[in-house]
Amino acid sequence: MQQKGLLVVVSGPSGTGKGTVCQRLLSKRSTAKYSVSATTRKPREGEVEGKNYFFVSESKFLDMIDNNDLIEWDKYCDNYYGTPKSYVEACIKEGLDVILEITVAGALEIKQKYPDCVLVFIIPPSFEELERRIVCRGTEGCDVIGKRLEQASREMKYASKYDYLVLNDSVDNAVSDIERILDSERLKPSRNEDLLSSLLKA
Amino acid sequence: MQQKGLLVVVSGPSGTGKGTVCQRLLSKRSTAKYSVSATTRKPREGEVEGKNYFFVSESKFLDMIDNNDLIEWDKYCDNYYGTPKSYVEACIKEGLDVILEITVAGALEIKQKYPDCVLVFIIPPSFEELERRIVCRGTEGCDVIGKRLEQASREMKYASKYDYLVLNDSVDNAVSDIERILDSERLKPSRNEDLLSSLLKA
Repeated sequence: MQQKGLLVVVSGPSGTGKGTVCQRLLSKRSTAKYSVSATTRKPREGEVEGKNYFFVSESKFLDMIDNNDLIEWDKYCDNYYGTPKSYVEACIKEGLDVILEITVAGALEIKQKYPDCVLVFIIPPSFEELERRIVCRGTEGCDVIGKRLEQASREMKYASKYDYLVLNDSVDNAVSDIERILDSERLKPSRNEDLLSSLLKA
Repeated sequence: MQQKGLLVVVSGPSGTGKGTVCQRLLSKRSTAKYSVSATTRKPREGEVEGKNYFFVSESKFLDMIDNNDLIEWDKYCDNYYGTPKSYVEACIKEGLDVILEITVAGALEIKQKYPDCVLVFIIPPSFEELERRIVCRGTEGCDVIGKRLEQASREMKYASKYDYLVLNDSVDNAVSDIERILDSERLKPSRNEDLLSSLLKA
């Protein structure tokens, strides 16, 4: 009896390094799979259909919204981005843990639709460190930096609504923490109904 | 800021090997501590006060019940056994994970009083294996074996009320599973309020 995979949602303010953590997790753990988003954005050079994105037309995307084919979606810089339900559900059925790296709003929306999903919030070692990382990141002006910090502070307020907090003091530690979370989540009775009923049948 | 320890309740039908699993866990993990029970039973040779048990008189034990000094208690073969609240709470405050190996009834009672405790149910690889272990264990007659099996089957029905199921196919695997559970439980937001508020204060 194949155990179903987990739907794992990873969020965190920009500057917490959640992208790097997810990449490392995926390279380390063959049973984890990145969720491939659908988008109306044109492919960039080297991007592969079905690997980086599912590239669709706007009318197709709007149809997907209408048909409830997306578990969450958003519009950003005139392009639509969304998570196709069929892809996610097929992976989970195969026993793969699907990793979704999305915003706080999207995460809470998914929790309502999939109460057994696992919400992981990546936190920086301190707010000062987050500030340093956002400032150091690039060439943005003070305005952009100020807005990012404000948004980070706003997003942090949602951390308590998540199932787990993972401190990204080092990528290795953060990845190990997420691995422990995935392993122990799989031990919950609600995820082992087949096993339980086989033991009870006796 | 010292994080509080966990109250970890381990149960499972007799024959699942939960005692061996707990012993191995404790020898491996210095932050885990066995809960020392109070009992009215006389000390056996070699038993040490405060290590194996807290040995108390019956009147003292009855006082402890009346004063709500025990988080659970039971009577077995004319002797009382119970878990002293003060000892457990002192360990947790120190940051130690307290391991309580108790019956299903006691576990559910504790969950009501301490909703943030962690309930772990040890399951055998199969009911046939459990049967084999109970039968092989000793010199008991068919009557006792029959009763044990009936009780095991009855207790198994409570597994779904636990937070986690740990399959004891090997002691090492079971101990690793429990370690992952303890590590990931410590990442829950409700167990990290100090950390969260320090990040939000910024």
